[in-house]
Amino acid sequence: MRRTRFGPARTIVVFYAITVTLGTLLLALPFTTTGDGRAHFSTALFTAASATCITGMSPVDVATYWNPFGQAVILLLVQAGGLGIVTLSVRLLQLVHGRMGIGGTLAAQADAHTDTPAHARSMIRVIVRFYLALEAFLAVLMALRLHFAYGEGVGRAAWDGLFHAVSAVNNAGFTLYSDGAAKFAHDPWVLAMLCGGVFIGGLGYPVWFELQRRRRPHQWTMHTRLTVGGSLVLFVVGLVTFIAFEWRNPGTLAHLDFTDKVWNSIGGAVFPRTAGFATVDYTAVRPETMAVNYVLMFIGGGSAGTSGGIKVSTFFLLGAVIISEIRGEPQARVGRRAIPVAVQRQALTVALLGVGIVMIGMIAILTISEQPMQLVLFETISAFSTTGLSANLTGQLPEGAQFVLIALMFIGRVGTMTVGSALAMRRSKRRYQLPEEFPIVG
Amino acid sequence: MRRTRFGPARTIVVFYAITVTLGTLLLALPFTTTGDGRAHFSTALFTAASATCITGMSPVDVATYWNPFGQAVILLLVQAGGLGIVTLSVRLLQLVHGRMGIGGTLAAQADAHTDTPAHARSMIRVIVRFYLALEAFLAVLMALRLHFAYGEGVGRAAWDGLFHAVSAVNNAGFTLYSDGAAKFAHDPWVLAMLCGGVFIGGLGYPVWFELQRRRRPHQWTMHTRLTVGGSLVLFVVGLVTFIAFEWRNPGTLAHLDFTDKVWNSIGGAVFPRTAGFATVDYTAVRPETMAVNYVLMFIGGGSAGTSGGIKVSTFFLLGAVIISEIRGEPQARVGRRAIPVAVQRQALTVALLGVGIVMIGMIAILTISEQPMQLVLFETISAFSTTGLSANLTGQLPEGAQFVLIALMFIGRVGTMTVGSALAMRRSKRRYQLPEEFPIVG
Ligand SMILES: [K+]
Ligand SMILES: [K+]
Repeated sequence: MRRTRFGPARTIVVFYAITVTLGTLLLALPFTTTGDGRAHFSTALFTAASATCITGMSPVDVATYWNPFGQAVILLLVQAGGLGIVTLSVRLLQLVHGRMGIGGTLAAQADAHTDTPAHARSMIRVIVRFYLALEAFLAVLMALRLHFAYGEGVGRAAWDGLFHAVSAVNNAGFTLYSDGAAKFAHDPWVLAMLCGGVFIGGLGYPVWFELQRRRRPHQWTMHTRLTVGGSLVLFVVGLVTFIAFEWRNPGTLAHLDFTDKVWNSIGGAVFPRTAGFATVDYTAVRPETMAVNYVLMFIGGGSAGTSGGIKVSTFFLLGAVIISEIRGEPQARVGRRAIPVAVQRQALTVALLGVGIVMIGMIAILTISEQPMQLVLFETISAFSTTGLSANLTGQLPEGAQFVLIALMFIGRVGTMTVGSALAMRRSKRRYQLPEEFPIVG
Repeated sequence: MRRTRFGPARTIVVFYAITVTLGTLLLALPFTTTGDGRAHFSTALFTAASATCITGMSPVDVATYWNPFGQAVILLLVQAGGLGIVTLSVRLLQLVHGRMGIGGTLAAQADAHTDTPAHARSMIRVIVRFYLALEAFLAVLMALRLHFAYGEGVGRAAWDGLFHAVSAVNNAGFTLYSDGAAKFAHDPWVLAMLCGGVFIGGLGYPVWFELQRRRRPHQWTMHTRLTVGGSLVLFVVGLVTFIAFEWRNPGTLAHLDFTDKVWNSIGGAVFPRTAGFATVDYTAVRPETMAVNYVLMFIGGGSAGTSGGIKVSTFFLLGAVIISEIRGEPQARVGRRAIPVAVQRQALTVALLGVGIVMIGMIAILTISEQPMQLVLFETISAFSTTGLSANLTGQLPEGAQFVLIALMFIGRVGTMTVGSALAMRRSKRRYQLPEEFPIVG
């Protein structure tokens, strides 16, 4: 019985495992690299895992190491990984929230009777159509810009436009340029396109549906309030700290003019939210910026979207619990709605398991390598949250450490979501009450 | 009404503020240092705060900078800080747990009717007597060892013995030697004495009382189970990782013989739990050891004792919530007792506020100074948790960063406990139920 109910969670794990395996085999073919011979196995595996988990980290320069065939494989894996998470999460969330038999959980489900497979299929069609339309729209914009402003030929501009549109909407962060998104550090138009694609793709379909249907924020569901409000808070915090810490840093913003400084700061606030595009050199940012990025990356984006991390709703739900507690309110709440105790426990579990996994991953890499902790922690959180930002460390790490990163990417991609759902599914009725006891806190 | 109930929490804040002020004035007198002239104000303030908050960090070498008068002031401040926390917490916990009107909260209160000021006074007498007896016992042992094994004269040995006994039982970590506790790296006897004093002093009186009265662990209260079981887990984790990471490290254990390696590893597991004695050079430990130490220091020791951190019970209570959640149990529990939802929220609040304060403190110091994050985070957590371990950074930090550390020590000492109690006191009856709503987690 439980097995049947767990179907979608298991499907997600199996889907990603198979896709990573297929991708590794494809990338390990003899005609995928620009050099002679085939790619090293660990390079193929790392790249396939990174693309499928829409992380974007890479031990090699994607622009020069892989030939167009290899790059096309990466693009396909990114598309499969992104579409996979979005569509599989429909059925997963339907089961989790449908079973609870309450309206108002998700707008998309509150407005219609959705707990039938037929409805799920039609919902998936709507979502995939919106998703592909967003990619196509962005691809055209990018291609036009690359053709007219950068003088790329029509075919090249179309390919580059498609690749970067898919990379942005899926929050993958791969680019086809050796200097990555830094190529566009002086181009607000492209930065705005990338930020837009990343932001919309990362919100998640439950928020898309709701924003499309209802107008006023006070009518939003708790999930949308937490995700939209939280994303806004994180954007402001990321922007203000990036400007404050980097404005005069000669390694990052100091040499840019005012407009470019602002736009790169906007990128510096948006891209760590699991997009992974880097317009500045993350080996040169201030350590205090790194520290803020740890937090932004770990939190990530919206649920049931292409972003990673423990998710905005999880983090701000815990924040709401703490604020209610400090205010001395009898129930933890968001607006006029109480947060169920079981959901509080789920959020706590997802968040602290995440902290534990990051700690173990970091300690493992520290014991294997001789790199400074500040950079190792950056790569570790980047992998776990599938952000893909890198302080140029990935390629320098020994193979053992790269396998740790691969494991973190996989756990981060399939783990947070399936664990969150699995916990919600297992919620059981209380058959008896244990007597309570009050230990000392603090 | 609320003001009256909050009396003890406010008393703690006022008591520590006054003691730090008095200590600063005393240490700033013209005849406290070995050199000419008086101590710099910031040095006096830092040392007074560190001693009163029983942290043990110091921007100067306590052994050579202060003369015997200055050292006596430090000893008095440590004693005041330690006795203060232990006695003030009696009244605080009595109010918090007495008001809830349940037996079984604390053994000491379950066995007798304790919610009267008269009983509190008699309890404080018992605790202070036990506490001073422990210090005296350890002082005699230490003095004997220093006299017979280190050839210190009788007067000197008595003074040193007293100082280090008080420093150990109060989890202060100050020593009168320029090489700190490293002087005893080859002396298992002294290491055992220090570990013993630190461990017993840090358990907290609620556990003392219970261990003295009841025999079998399954009869223990939840608080004692969490604290004793958790301390054991942390000891084993600290010991195993210290041995695994440092055994062959030429900067720390490699040059020691087998017995010394083991005893220094025991110290390496016990002292970061807010004692702050350093037998090894923390600038030379492996980064992975540092990472484990971050966690050990942040958690700290037992509630209502001389240790700091968010407390063992807070941390393992959250651990129990997560384990219950993963097992799919309807209530979070420890053994056959449920953890009240309100207490879960308190623990979450204390722990995450702690993380937030450490993050803000670290970012503040990173912006002020140019030190590596790995070391700054170490000093930040050490200050907040009043552990007092140092990677020799304190003296090198600019004055502004030292003030941040002072603030962290103060918040860490008075904050965790008063916040935990204040939250418990504010627990109010539910006058109405808000409708629940289920956001997505993960
Ligand atoms: K990414
Ligand atoms: K200490």
